[in-house]
Amino acid sequence: MTQGRGDYRILQEAALRDYLAGMPDIAAQLGGEPAAWAITEVGDGNLNLVFIVKGARGGVAVKQALPYVRLVGESWPLPLSRAHYEYLALSRQAKLAPGLVPALLHHNETLALTVMELLEPHIIMRKGLVAGMRYPRFADDISTFMARNLFFTSDLALPAAEKKEAIAAFAGNHALCKITEDLIFTDPYRIAEQNRWTAPYLDGLAASLRDDMELHVAISRLKLKFMASPEALLHGDLHTGSIMVTESQTRVIDPEFAFYGPMGFDVGAVLANLLMAYFASAGHERAAGERHEFETWVLETVEQVWSEFSRKFLDLWRTEASGDAYPLPLFAGDKGAARLKAERQAYMQRLFTDTVGFAAAKTIRRIFGLAHNIDFELIEDPRKRAISEARAVRLARGMMVEAAAFRTIADVTGAARKLRDWQPELSV
Amino acid sequence: MTQGRGDYRILQEAALRDYLAGMPDIAAQLGGEPAAWAITEVGDGNLNLVFIVKGARGGVAVKQALPYVRLVGESWPLPLSRAHYEYLALSRQAKLAPGLVPALLHHNETLALTVMELLEPHIIMRKGLVAGMRYPRFADDISTFMARNLFFTSDLALPAAEKKEAIAAFAGNHALCKITEDLIFTDPYRIAEQNRWTAPYLDGLAASLRDDMELHVAISRLKLKFMASPEALLHGDLHTGSIMVTESQTRVIDPEFAFYGPMGFDVGAVLANLLMAYFASAGHERAAGERHEFETWVLETVEQVWSEFSRKFLDLWRTEASGDAYPLPLFAGDKGAARLKAERQAYMQRLFTDTVGFAAAKTIRRIFGLAHNIDFELIEDPRKRAISEARAVRLARGMMVEAAAFRTIADVTGAARKLRDWQPELSV
Repeated sequence: MTQGRGDYRILQEAALRDYLAGMPDIAAQLGGEPAAWAITEVGDGNLNLVFIVKGARGGVAVKQALPYVRLVGESWPLPLSRAHYEYLALSRQAKLAPGLVPALLHHNETLALTVMELLEPHIIMRKGLVAGMRYPRFADDISTFMARNLFFTSDLALPAAEKKEAIAAFAGNHALCKITEDLIFTDPYRIAEQNRWTAPYLDGLAASLRDDMELHVAISRLKLKFMASPEALLHGDLHTGSIMVTESQTRVIDPEFAFYGPMGFDVGAVLANLLMAYFASAGHERAAGERHEFETWVLETVEQVWSEFSRKFLDLWRTEASGDAYPLPLFAGDKGAARLKAERQAYMQRLFTDTVGFAAAKTIRRIFGLAHNIDFELIEDPRKRAISEARAVRLARGMMVEAAAFRTIADVTGAARKLRDWQPELSV
Repeated sequence: MTQGRGDYRILQEAALRDYLAGMPDIAAQLGGEPAAWAITEVGDGNLNLVFIVKGARGGVAVKQALPYVRLVGESWPLPLSRAHYEYLALSRQAKLAPGLVPALLHHNETLALTVMELLEPHIIMRKGLVAGMRYPRFADDISTFMARNLFFTSDLALPAAEKKEAIAAFAGNHALCKITEDLIFTDPYRIAEQNRWTAPYLDGLAASLRDDMELHVAISRLKLKFMASPEALLHGDLHTGSIMVTESQTRVIDPEFAFYGPMGFDVGAVLANLLMAYFASAGHERAAGERHEFETWVLETVEQVWSEFSRKFLDLWRTEASGDAYPLPLFAGDKGAARLKAERQAYMQRLFTDTVGFAAAKTIRRIFGLAHNIDFELIEDPRKRAISEARAVRLARGMMVEAAAFRTIADVTGAARKLRDWQPELSV
């Protein structure tokens, strides 16, 4: 995707108002006079402009890509084409998992701009988790989202030709993949200018990770898998900051990192961010044990996300296997059906191992890399924050180096529970 | 790649003569009057027209794709775009492994036509192997060809962005991949109209493979790996019918199946075809033991192909690792270097396991699928042929189902040697 950058312009408030007013459907949806629309820039992500526009009747959200990384500035250019890939992915997700992504209202490829349903009163899930909120619908919704999106874009559902074309359609999004390759799979394990951590408390832990060759082999294998295993169309950035929730609704947003990659990367992202919410929770306590029910819910949710994802994925495989992988004529009769059933379980076990490893990678990058998360960052006392982070890192290190030793999701939550009150040695 | 089929036409002798006469460089290379050029159609492959053109001074080879599978006829259409992918692959191989592919003289995408250096006095290696010829250069040359082509198109050598673009550049060749997916990874294991085997002798063996669920799981895992593991740019059809040889030269031809896939598929193809030559050899004996030296050479060559490939690939990894995989800053110092060295060995061991599995798949398809090979086909006595084939299948079945049990290439050749005089039970 090359962009005619000549026609791209950043739409700030006035220009955006005119632009939206020029589209009758959207203007009608907003209602009233364009001059009266309230336009607020709310982007708190790392990459883009996001506006909320509200009129007399309703509201919309507008997302426009900037030609650089917003978190860093113009010194780090980033292709506008990512808006095209986000639009492609969002369209696909809307078909495959209806009701779990915001409705698409308009896309302009030249402006790298998308107008979407305004999600109200949804909040970013991560903020809710920091506040100790529980989301009873979440495990069911996110497991549906992942099972359907990953299954239906995989070789289990797609003819091989269609799958190859789909891989190619997202190949151009490599600048976004490169961010992941660097920031998740490389930088946290070496001295890199953009790294940061809760210093000086975690200085020793940071140094020990940089010197941990077993960990470096494990992260390098995961990196290679990330780069060269186009199993399914991933969201690519499926953390709790990319999910908006109410108690009764879940919406997944921001798939601009979408590409064909290993399924475990998405599933691991969800589990990792829940586990980080769990370890951060102790840091948000004002009285010992006050967040116990929240923490119990988080670990139950970790278990349910995996078990429901696995169950739904297997259900789809049993009923919707129209792809070229595992051809059914090779598994005819009772004996074939039994053997295929066992193989499906083995497949899920391999996917679980990948998931455990990727979850670990997603954890370590949030503690030692460039992009941190508010689960930990909002723990004001840096010593408390470092303790929560060190617990998460201890679990993650084990999950990455001995991923296959975690046979079930209960092995993961059990290990997390044991670390709830573990006292790490800090550097000061 | 969509083709303007309106301009495509099949060039038979007269039209081809005019076409070549219109290109001064090629006309000069042929020499003399175009009317005096000798044009002979020699294509004995499954898909294309191949002409040898000889003039007063020299000769060229001309390959033109037909819009259908030549072996089957117009009922099986096949995109002409494969000539474009073949040209892309050949150009890449010429750069990466100079002197090991024919020189490219001209390519016309619309006509799906390529003019190449005429290889003389080279013969198709498979014909030489049937005749019991030995090729002392072969192991060195083919291991260089594979090590350089696979390494330099992999994540070990390419930046991730370039690799993703390269995968996309070959994604459109999916019709050729589909032939492999069906004919190698599916049909031999089920009842399929195009299957054939040395009946009635192998009827029981054919039925037993169709009923062998462990084998069906193994071939399905390999199929999925073939479809979804774009490790490197493969030749895609690297059997001894795609290699032309003299005693002192090796040239790899016909990369029209080129795509990004698992490295073991190419390496396994070479090993499988040597192993089939080994098992076929007994069927070509006129006196017991007369081909003993040839057979010894074949198994030594199997061992050398793998060990030289592995050694050269590792050498390249040590000296030319400019890709994004296994970043060197993560393996600094003596400890890092030692750990990376061990990981490279582990990588090669995984690649060896893949190779063993794919070699098995390439063997079974030649005995029960659509496309057979003259190693076996030219054994006139069908009972003798069936015995040779059954030996190859016995080894292949083990290699596919227990690939990881073959730890070294000597395990493979040792198993082959033990089967040299094994007497299978035939159906009649």
